[in-house]
Amino acid sequence: MEKANSAKEAARLIEDGMVIGIGSGSTVEIFLNELGKRIKEEELEIWGVPSSYQSHMLAVENGITVTDLIQFEELDLCVDGADQVDENLNCIKGKGGALLREKIVAQAAEEVIIIVDSRKIVDVLDERVPVEVFPFAYGNAVKEIKKLGGEAVLRESDRKLGACITDNGNFILDVDFGRIEDPEGLECRINCIAGVFENGIFPRRLIDRVIVGTKDGVRVLRN
Amino acid sequence: MEKANSAKEAARLIEDGMVIGIGSGSTVEIFLNELGKRIKEEELEIWGVPSSYQSHMLAVENGITVTDLIQFEELDLCVDGADQVDENLNCIKGKGGALLREKIVAQAAEEVIIIVDSRKIVDVLDERVPVEVFPFAYGNAVKEIKKLGGEAVLRESDRKLGACITDNGNFILDVDFGRIEDPEGLECRINCIAGVFENGIFPRRLIDRVIVGTKDGVRVLRN
Repeated sequence: MEKANSAKEAARLIEDGMVIGIGSGSTVEIFLNELGKRIKEEELEIWGVPSSYQSHMLAVENGITVTDLIQFEELDLCVDGADQVDENLNCIKGKGGALLREKIVAQAAEEVIIIVDSRKIVDVLDERVPVEVFPFAYGNAVKEIKKLGGEAVLRESDRKLGACITDNGNFILDVDFGRIEDPEGLECRINCIAGVFENGIFPRRLIDRVIVGTKDGVRVLRN
Repeated sequence: MEKANSAKEAARLIEDGMVIGIGSGSTVEIFLNELGKRIKEEELEIWGVPSSYQSHMLAVENGITVTDLIQFEELDLCVDGADQVDENLNCIKGKGGALLREKIVAQAAEEVIIIVDSRKIVDVLDERVPVEVFPFAYGNAVKEIKKLGGEAVLRESDRKLGACITDNGNFILDVDFGRIEDPEGLECRINCIAGVFENGIFPRRLIDRVIVGTKDGVRVLRN
């Protein structure tokens, strides 16, 4: 399974004593379970800052000591998945709705490693961009995003009637921008809308390495 | 009193049926009380989107029908105070800690009117810039702000031990950038830090008119 190959390779890179940023999603879950085995077998001491309730719970289960960015303003490493990655290492993330804290732990980390299967690699990003929006700003934020060429749809909850609410109490808009030729520029323009807290474009400046799982191993893209 | 002159002038500009954005602070309080007299005497119907609990309560007391940006994605007018205004109409706001919603209602309004006394006008902005930060990002956000040349201090609560918490549950950093020669550029660079939700630089593109109270009346700066 491609994503398992990628997750296992990342788990091998963690060293005793590291403070890591922990992304979210199904590939990160495999990574944490693999890391958990190493922590147990090799008696490693690993500290982690999780980016969601999902990864918080998985970190605790796997023997990682959960900490925060008040204790550690910098992290040694961050491991996370992605929904789409271009050959320049720009990514789109946030289908799981955890993009805000994911981007913060990525920003805080000295090195950011993205783990994906090979289907996630594309020439040009064209996935819908998740945008975390302060509910107070909702109607106006949709309008401002349209000025940037994006068609926004409010993500709906799969639990009950109404909007999907993030771990942080906000809305997610899924925004169709078509082909994204300038990911770094668009990322900043979206974030400069008042009421937008963060968006799912993770530009290459944040990313150091992408470990792509293949059928029989991994392929590594470096920045 | 200068700020009363400015607030009264703004209250005269509100027309029956308008949907207005309502800022926060002591000058806005005078504005709302003056508008309340007009609403009562002239039987006006005014709708408003308040930017804080303070102005929400004052709006209700003064006969304004409180609404939101889901009902109205655009506002006719927004009236707010400021802590500092330069001759190009760039402002610094947020000493009262309400800058996030203040900027959202300003962005949503077709016309933004700032009401201040004459001591607020300066050649170059040099006040500390309030920055609303997601508590999860605190340590790292301070570090990222330093890369932009800012010295950040966590605003402390005046109610109890610890940090001041905004109406939205976040921290406020007061950041010394010295003289701010490029307010619009700095505004965007601060907002592109992951974990920063908004900052108190309101660049001139948001502002249409500044009504400066003087001893015997007002002086108006237009964009």
